[in-house]
Amino acid sequence: MSRFWNEKTRDIKPYVPGEQPPPNSRLIKINTNENPYPPSPKVIGAIMRETGLSESGGREETGNGSRLRLYPDTNASAVVEAVCERFGLEPGQVFAGNGSDELLAFAFMAFWDDSRPVMVPEISYSFYPVYADLFGIPLIKIPMKNGLEIDCDAFESGKGGIVIANPNAPTSIGLPLTRIKGMLDAHPDDVVLVDEAYVDFGGESAIGLVQEYPNLLVVRTLSKSCSLAGMRIGFAAGSAGLIEGLNRIKNSFNSYTLDRLAIAAGAAAIRDREYYDNINNRVMETRERTAASLREIGFEMPDSSANFLFVTHPRYSASEIFSYLRSKGILVRYFNTPGIDNYLRISIGTDEEMETLVAALRDYVA
Amino acid sequence: MSRFWNEKTRDIKPYVPGEQPPPNSRLIKINTNENPYPPSPKVIGAIMRETGLSESGGREETGNGSRLRLYPDTNASAVVEAVCERFGLEPGQVFAGNGSDELLAFAFMAFWDDSRPVMVPEISYSFYPVYADLFGIPLIKIPMKNGLEIDCDAFESGKGGIVIANPNAPTSIGLPLTRIKGMLDAHPDDVVLVDEAYVDFGGESAIGLVQEYPNLLVVRTLSKSCSLAGMRIGFAAGSAGLIEGLNRIKNSFNSYTLDRLAIAAGAAAIRDREYYDNINNRVMETRERTAASLREIGFEMPDSSANFLFVTHPRYSASEIFSYLRSKGILVRYFNTPGIDNYLRISIGTDEEMETLVAALRDYVA
Repeated sequence: MSRFWNEKTRDIKPYVPGEQPPPNSRLIKINTNENPYPPSPKVIGAIMRETGLSESGGREETGNGSRLRLYPDTNASAVVEAVCERFGLEPGQVFAGNGSDELLAFAFMAFWDDSRPVMVPEISYSFYPVYADLFGIPLIKIPMKNGLEIDCDAFESGKGGIVIANPNAPTSIGLPLTRIKGMLDAHPDDVVLVDEAYVDFGGESAIGLVQEYPNLLVVRTLSKSCSLAGMRIGFAAGSAGLIEGLNRIKNSFNSYTLDRLAIAAGAAAIRDREYYDNINNRVMETRERTAASLREIGFEMPDSSANFLFVTHPRYSASEIFSYLRSKGILVRYFNTPGIDNYLRISIGTDEEMETLVAALRDYVA
Repeated sequence: MSRFWNEKTRDIKPYVPGEQPPPNSRLIKINTNENPYPPSPKVIGAIMRETGLSESGGREETGNGSRLRLYPDTNASAVVEAVCERFGLEPGQVFAGNGSDELLAFAFMAFWDDSRPVMVPEISYSFYPVYADLFGIPLIKIPMKNGLEIDCDAFESGKGGIVIANPNAPTSIGLPLTRIKGMLDAHPDDVVLVDEAYVDFGGESAIGLVQEYPNLLVVRTLSKSCSLAGMRIGFAAGSAGLIEGLNRIKNSFNSYTLDRLAIAAGAAAIRDREYYDNINNRVMETRERTAASLREIGFEMPDSSANFLFVTHPRYSASEIFSYLRSKGILVRYFNTPGIDNYLRISIGTDEEMETLVAALRDYVA
């Protein structure tokens, strides 16, 4: 506490991200849904070029990093153009930002306020309530159905904007597009924000609905499916009015939030679909094998459409399993939150990492 | 306009940054105060290492960008530690962010609100009033003294927090440290934010006062004096209470705003004082030569403590000179703002660029 803080700063309860151990620790790190495979070689090439290094690795005669002395493109147009090409959108329908968290923050700032409430699932990304608090937006938490499912009917009949993750986190459950359409149809005058951080691991994307629904904002991140958590790149797709709203807020907050290397990396990643389809298919295969092995030893979980599993065991405490795994050098995520405090969220690592995890859990339940 | 925008989004007047022509344009770009010299070779080396490339430029057997798949350090500790070493501070007294603009945004969010007004100089960085608007903070513009000078007495006797740039922009005038102390002493219960974006070009820094004044927040950027505008890195130094306040806001907004390559680049830049002292001394020498040449042909300007000159000519219109220079391929900055609408802000480029500028202006006035 400091006497210099304003009321908001005193009252806010900041989001707490998952633990980030030092890069050289020997932990099996399956706690923050990072991709176990490296980014595309084309991403590395793009970073080298923007840094002023030639493709072969040598420093170029001219340049040598000299572009880095210049401000980046305020619109991150290279990222926007790559998104447009891939999804058949116009530049005015796409916004690029510093990770999907920044996009979410700008969206909460742009579209809702104390007179415009927003609905979120009771169990979802725990940053949503923090944004609502930070910007003084009334938040309506819609209770889950059957334990872990998003209650779409309740969202349709409720009043206010909508923010949902699809697939949802930490539950891993994906909603069919028909249910997203239902929400969009039921709320023509409210923004419906669909956070698709995990959609590339088997979810149904709403991005194709952007032309049809002016109230739809789809938010994506390159952190997970493009193996670029370290580079902070996200984008949003929506009608020109929504995108202009995000730009008005961004340009009143920080004119350049993506640096030159992030822009170069992001554009290259979005374009290299073949590489990423390949590694993400591997992640999904590993997920299915891991799920089967865990079910064999008594774990229960919903079918996952994401790059993680959300597991519980009828006979063992999740918090105790968490501590046991930590002692074995395996880091997973545990949320001490009512309703999910006997679950663990386990990111999908390499096959080898998941075999080590399954072996450790087999020992534990034996 | 969109019906989905909230009142704030409808009303806000976003900041308009200086024009950023494409990197390959042949313009002499002296409009946004970038450093004409490239970043330190050690910065390039740090970027290569974090990307997974060996120092010699080849790709390493292991790694190959694989760190980029992992989230960065949420505290950007490598940057914080470099700042601490250089200025003799503790980690709790330093905050790293996505350019000084993000730091300013977080500070406005953390320390002021509708019940806590803030004072700014009438002529200063035009983003300050945008932040005040965005966050609903009453703004008091303190009129300038003798045309372009900050009226320190008025700041001392006024009520509210203080945000000033020192050296000020776009005027280029630096205040002595005694005047900053005067403001700090006069406002023990208000935050005094000193934006030192340009201090490395001859200003007096207040960073040594951090231990003494719990109400002082010094904000710095690596964009100008570290030739890293393209990488979006800034830092703030202040008492532990102020820094914790910034962290509470950041962690409620976006947990990671500096990516891995920005963190690596920033830490390396702050540590390579020798390289940067050398290039910034060159910038200051070029500035003095340019100022003398421009005065010879009738331009008037305050003595500059920054990497730009703020010039006016008693016989010619600044907006016409701006257009003339544009037609000659020279891009400077013109602000169509009452009080300074007959001035041009000219960033200091290389000697060759400034000679071209002076020759063009000599033709113009002849």
